Amino acid sequence: MPPVVITLLTDFGTRDAYVGAMKGVILGINPPGALVDLTHEIPPQDLTAGAFVLAAAAPYFPPGTVHLAVVDPGVGTGRRGLAAFARGQYFVGPDNGLFHFIFKEADDLAIVSLENRAYFRAEISATFHGRDIFAPVAAHLARGVALEELGPPVTDPVLLSLPEPVFDEDEAAGELIYADRFGNLVSNLRFDRLLSWLGGQEFLVQVGPCTLTRFSTTYGEVAPGEVLALKGSHGYLEIACNLASAAERLGVSVGAPLRVRKV
Amino acid sequence: MPPVVITLLTDFGTRDAYVGAMKGVILGINPPGALVDLTHEIPPQDLTAGAFVLAAAAPYFPPGTVHLAVVDPGVGTGRRGLAAFARGQYFVGPDNGLFHFIFKEADDLAIVSLENRAYFRAEISATFHGRDIFAPVAAHLARGVALEELGPPVTDPVLLSLPEPVFDEDEAAGELIYADRFGNLVSNLRFDRLLSWLGGQEFLVQVGPCTLTRFSTTYGEVAPGEVLALKGSHGYLEIACNLASAAERLGVSVGAPLRVRKV
Amino acid sequence: MPPVVITLLTDFGTRDAYVGAMKGVILGINPPGALVDLTHEIPPQDLTAGAFVLAAAAPYFPPGTVHLAVVDPGVGTGRRGLAAFARGQYFVGPDNGLFHFIFKEADDLAIVSLENRAYFRAEISATFHGRDIFAPVAAHLARGVALEELGPPVTDPVLLSLPEPVFDEDEAAGELIYADRFGNLVSNLRFDRLLSWLGGQEFLVQVGPCTLTRFSTTYGEVAPGEVLALKGSHGYLEIACNLASAAERLGVSVGAPLRVRKV
Repeated sequence: MPPVVITLLTDFGTRDAYVGAMKGVILGINPPGALVDLTHEIPPQDLTAGAFVLAAAAPYFPPGTVHLAVVDPGVGTGRRGLAAFARGQYFVGPDNGLFHFIFKEADDLAIVSLENRAYFRAEISATFHGRDIFAPVAAHLARGVALEELGPPVTDPVLLSLPEPVFDEDEAAGELIYADRFGNLVSNLRFDRLLSWLGGQEFLVQVGPCTLTRFSTTYGEVAPGEVLALKGSHGYLEIACNLASAAERLGVSVGAPLRVRKV
Repeated sequence: MPPVVITLLTDFGTRDAYVGAMKGVILGINPPGALVDLTHEIPPQDLTAGAFVLAAAAPYFPPGTVHLAVVDPGVGTGRRGLAAFARGQYFVGPDNGLFHFIFKEADDLAIVSLENRAYFRAEISATFHGRDIFAPVAAHLARGVALEELGPPVTDPVLLSLPEPVFDEDEAAGELIYADRFGNLVSNLRFDRLLSWLGGQEFLVQVGPCTLTRFSTTYGEVAPGEVLALKGSHGYLEIACNLASAAERLGVSVGAPLRVRKV
Repeated sequence: MPPVVITLLTDFGTRDAYVGAMKGVILGINPPGALVDLTHEIPPQDLTAGAFVLAAAAPYFPPGTVHLAVVDPGVGTGRRGLAAFARGQYFVGPDNGLFHFIFKEADDLAIVSLENRAYFRAEISATFHGRDIFAPVAAHLARGVALEELGPPVTDPVLLSLPEPVFDEDEAAGELIYADRFGNLVSNLRFDRLLSWLGGQEFLVQVGPCTLTRFSTTYGEVAPGEVLALKGSHGYLEIACNLASAAERLGVSVGAPLRVRKV
């Protein structure tokens, strides 16, 4: 049987010893582990970005994968640590909304609070639970330890208070929730839902100073530097710019409103 | 038998979910895969930098390694996807010049156009062939699928239109094609060819405001801050600066001319 | 038996082909190797930062791990290459102080000078011993080659000339030796030694414009933006700032003095 994959997502960056220490702990417990970095470049303490990137990458991994996610501004305070089973995969990290999209979209959800210290490191620092609690728990899950071994069930995990899109009769009002490295702007409007709401009618997309009247399929459909709206690879309505940054071109960023109007 | 190594080179950066999604797809198809990042920091859509870094790293990997490279400004347009066998290794990615140096230097080259959808993901987004086509194809190659299974042969792959060095009787005219993180400037003059062209004669190297009259062997041969010319680790004539950045010191960058004159 | 872990720490960055080439060489010699990046973002040629990060991460890895570290401003000059066994793990890299903390804290230390060319690559460039000497040596160690096979013993490895903390009767004088990505400032005062020196007495911590009168346990104990002193995850007295950067807040950085006074 191939080794279970363990992914890591943090806001630790890659210049310090933090990620290495976590990997060392995992490999000490689960030697043949296949470690995959999702990213360590989540902006410090940005739970929404962490939650979005995790939810965008996780579905592509095999069943049984253990996703270890640590964006943890509340480390050392009373916040719980969690392990969860959702959509056939495991998730380990702090109870602060980082698993918002995972928990919202799962129909097979089981969550426990990390309380069984037998699966922690012997000494637990107050400032680095990623290394001392979450990494060893992830390694033990990858070795086959059962979720319910780790602690009692949790039914009220913390979720993010995110803006929900509003679909009125004539207007769908959403906002930008993520900007990627290329300046592509991801909205919170599910593209497939938007299409069925439109029902084939003409429309305007309004974002920043820009109004668009159609959806594109690929970047190359418009002239270089031109803005377009399309179904992004995450499944949401996305605003992009062919061979340039839509964020820079439009002067908007995460949090800005985006509206689709039937005309 | 050890698992086949799959390397990844992209311009996706490491802060978004893109690289993670590709790795998830690969591990779902080829579980024990040994994944190695070459780099994800190719400047966005810079095919020359991508081609150079790929060609500089690939030869050091074992035979049979699968190199997955995605710098893909034309994604979703008509450009072909390719898989190739060259110098004992496999290469997968868009047909846009990214494999320029690999294809130019191989004498055992076989290339196919990716057309057999049995080796793609079931749903193919218009903007992320890295995840939906190239990653699964690379994983299938690593599992032993034959190149010719993937599609029909290609004999006219896209190459870059790069400046070729010109060796006249008294002057070798090249240019700078890559600047690394340290500010070392790599030229397109093969060092060994340059030496044999010089035939032991005295010479001047001219680059930016600087004239050099000899080749050094190591950085430490000159005083700190002094500029030197040497055989770089890639095999080309390289301009460096001991304990400093030659790019900054000389105020030149990629595209600048470099001349060697017999005297 | 699980594959031996090989970690890599360099100042090469992640945008060039250097790290990939090293990994290719390792996998060619030791195919099933489990490669783990500690970091490649050590500031160019900063031996102290390299030594600190290596010493901070290494102890968390399993016994037998091979740590390959290359921050090598003297490459190609006469400086020796080393392989060492310390605290149950192996270390490979240049003899320039990069292993300062490892060597100082080991009581089972064995060091050899890398002289047996049978374990190098056949062709050795003057500027990239990471690829041509250290990577193959690390791979051979991971395969089980004995340390003494690699070259003659070394008893005088190069150490860094670092400021040592001074514990007087009433004052402990140290300095800041590392600033992490979050702006946390790590001092060279071992927290446990500091506590026993204080013997329960009241004290003042003075750093930059700031005076603190107690140690905190977690960041969240103080108000957002407030500075605190605590035992960092590395075991040293650390100056941090809740939800902000202590380095920015205090306007101090590595090299600045830090004093603890009994009152």
